[in-house]
Amino acid sequence: MRFLIIGGDAAGMSAASKAKRKDRNLDVVVLEKSMDVSYSACGMPYNIADAATSMDALVVRAADTFINTNKIDLRCGHWAEAVDPVSRTVTVVGPDNNRFTLSYDTLLIATGASPVMPEIPGVGLPGVFPLKNLEHGRKIKHFIGSRRVKRAVIIGMGYIGLEMCEALCARSIAVEMVKPGPVLLPWMNPELSDVVEQELARNRVVIHPGHGIKAIRPNSGSLKVVCDTLDLDADMVILASGVKPNSRLAKDAGLDIGPSGAVAVDARLKTSDPHIYSAGDCADAIHVVTGGKCWIPLALRANRAGWAVADNVCGVETRLSGVVGTAVFKLFSLEIARTGLTVTEAKAAGFDPVEVVVKTRSKAHGHKGSSTIYTAMAGDRRTGRLLGVQMVGHGGVAHRINAPAVALHNRMDVQGFAQADLAYAPPFGPVWDPVLTAANQLLKKL
Amino acid sequence: MRFLIIGGDAAGMSAASKAKRKDRNLDVVVLEKSMDVSYSACGMPYNIADAATSMDALVVRAADTFINTNKIDLRCGHWAEAVDPVSRTVTVVGPDNNRFTLSYDTLLIATGASPVMPEIPGVGLPGVFPLKNLEHGRKIKHFIGSRRVKRAVIIGMGYIGLEMCEALCARSIAVEMVKPGPVLLPWMNPELSDVVEQELARNRVVIHPGHGIKAIRPNSGSLKVVCDTLDLDADMVILASGVKPNSRLAKDAGLDIGPSGAVAVDARLKTSDPHIYSAGDCADAIHVVTGGKCWIPLALRANRAGWAVADNVCGVETRLSGVVGTAVFKLFSLEIARTGLTVTEAKAAGFDPVEVVVKTRSKAHGHKGSSTIYTAMAGDRRTGRLLGVQMVGHGGVAHRINAPAVALHNRMDVQGFAQADLAYAPPFGPVWDPVLTAANQLLKKL
Repeated sequence: MRFLIIGGDAAGMSAASKAKRKDRNLDVVVLEKSMDVSYSACGMPYNIADAATSMDALVVRAADTFINTNKIDLRCGHWAEAVDPVSRTVTVVGPDNNRFTLSYDTLLIATGASPVMPEIPGVGLPGVFPLKNLEHGRKIKHFIGSRRVKRAVIIGMGYIGLEMCEALCARSIAVEMVKPGPVLLPWMNPELSDVVEQELARNRVVIHPGHGIKAIRPNSGSLKVVCDTLDLDADMVILASGVKPNSRLAKDAGLDIGPSGAVAVDARLKTSDPHIYSAGDCADAIHVVTGGKCWIPLALRANRAGWAVADNVCGVETRLSGVVGTAVFKLFSLEIARTGLTVTEAKAAGFDPVEVVVKTRSKAHGHKGSSTIYTAMAGDRRTGRLLGVQMVGHGGVAHRINAPAVALHNRMDVQGFAQADLAYAPPFGPVWDPVLTAANQLLKKL
Repeated sequence: MRFLIIGGDAAGMSAASKAKRKDRNLDVVVLEKSMDVSYSACGMPYNIADAATSMDALVVRAADTFINTNKIDLRCGHWAEAVDPVSRTVTVVGPDNNRFTLSYDTLLIATGASPVMPEIPGVGLPGVFPLKNLEHGRKIKHFIGSRRVKRAVIIGMGYIGLEMCEALCARSIAVEMVKPGPVLLPWMNPELSDVVEQELARNRVVIHPGHGIKAIRPNSGSLKVVCDTLDLDADMVILASGVKPNSRLAKDAGLDIGPSGAVAVDARLKTSDPHIYSAGDCADAIHVVTGGKCWIPLALRANRAGWAVADNVCGVETRLSGVVGTAVFKLFSLEIARTGLTVTEAKAAGFDPVEVVVKTRSKAHGHKGSSTIYTAMAGDRRTGRLLGVQMVGHGGVAHRINAPAVALHNRMDVQGFAQADLAYAPPFGPVWDPVLTAANQLLKKL
């Protein structure tokens, strides 16, 4: 029996490895269009920040290991051109442009996501880079290492843009950021977003929200980013306007596509075809808070979905309960985290959200080295249910978001969450953890 | 209507303040036997560590503020000698040894806990100190500041003993610890306890478990702690053999006492007398995991219980769902945390516990500055339910324990918890958070 996997990144290789561990006799074939598998994509900005480390330090397990130790038929440089669900075959283009078909009993589409490329002239110029795969990372790192890069412009202000901003600053590159949207982090409560903006300013990053980008032009050996009412000089441009799911292959095969444009899957990761699964950044998921579909392409979900597919393929029925939209990122010394719904998302999902913002200390009263933590918490006026939490602070935020995340999984109300027996010791927080203080304040408004 | 409160620490002052906020006309009287109210008791070791800071930096709100701003009739230096539930009166001994009675409509007994004093000669010698209240803290700090304290012996190896150990080392005092019990941290999984032991050794703290203590003796200007097969020289001795609930007053009044010796209360914090509440370190609580009574005297619980009493007194019926036994402390650069039940506690409660220990990194693959986190997780073989988690590591432990704590509140099974959508970014952890890796490993054994 053949389990064919398209895509050798987080979801694909997790599925391949676990399926092979569970069933040694399973014929597991992985088609990966690049030459890289199983690397920490999220680690790329941090690797770029560090001139002394090779980009290959991010490789978790080499292709050879998968082939020789795990006995997975991993084929790098192989591109899946088309899927025929009727004959259960995939048309493959090999490294020498040779075209052939591979049959499958079960197929996993784990084609990931691609950077959204701005539709402007100049995105193909030397010195202009997206950052999604390891090869992008290598190119950026090589460029910085081999040129005199003094100024960079980042187009986009999402997670990747902001992480790259810190990375480039660490390489002594002056950074400006630009995007058409009017707000730095539109999903974030404005009071918290202001703190992020201050952190950028403190690190001399200049941001230009509200500027449409017209073109990138060569400019006497360097580049110019031409915007609506603004021209920005740069030695290097990072394209970080978000990502989109690579669902074309699935769509062309006639599989259902969800409202977000990602491959529609059920809790078992099964697509609309009973022999085809999809997992990772190309597939959608259930949002536990709304109960509806969502597309939140993040690494943990991809790994977990890959494992669940392997279980299902090997006959152990596994259903994922869904995601709650937890995410965290670092920006200089700031930790920025969220879980659940924003007020806007909550309204769209039919809730009646009430939000509070509380400022608390990161450590106990009288304890040295304390900083401010900002917590925004939203609850539903009708049911009292906890809907979402956002936090920003110089330390003590990243892991704190996980307590409300677990509460969301359990559909807790704010009253119940406010009673949580959380850890306290003076070096780690006030007696009432910031998320509890937020819950106590929110209760007064519900 | 008079709301009389015995004890002006966390539970008592929380109740007093909230009751007065909710009902301006309520006559709120607080009797506090010491001269200190509303201070961060847990902060004392950290304050002692810092020669430059006054112990009074730990006072959160001064007695004057409660009296003048909050209009609470706070009487420091007043000791409640006896409660008569029939006449609803309390016999009080005032600062001049004057004895009088105060009537109440509702009474809160918030008498806290006291250090367990070893029953040996010499505990009253100069240089021998327990550490429970602010006055103890002042005396210890004054002693260190005014004498040449080079060597200290700590009797006991609980939270307070270990925190004091770090504090005294910070004051350049050589520390030895001794106790009769054979194991450093008997509640902790031995593999994790070893890590704590290594941290003590690295900081040149010598521990002597398994030594009964016979006496403390004067020894040519300093002290000698005489143990079973060991004599320890010391300039100062800290008594940290644990605490016991101050439930005598309640017991003498005929109130029910729980199995742990603490005042028995229901979810509304009501004692066996309908006009008397009890809260804080003197009262017991429901343990959410076992469903039975427990006595875990910690600060958050005391504050929360104080507030709940105020709500109930003011006519807003409030029930506490109970505790899950979450605790954290710092020891040099180590963070040590637990939530839920130990394997021993789980067996005693009728569960069939299975435990795993996993070693994971604190940061993502390839990310610099990563250290090891040890996680022990226990689940119930019969039901698959999550029972408890313990963690030890050099960073990234303190707030991580809160996610499983919330899971315990929701009676999650390990399978469900393993699906939690926890935050991931390379500077803050591996893709699979240590608690998820532990859950995944535990699932294989359940």
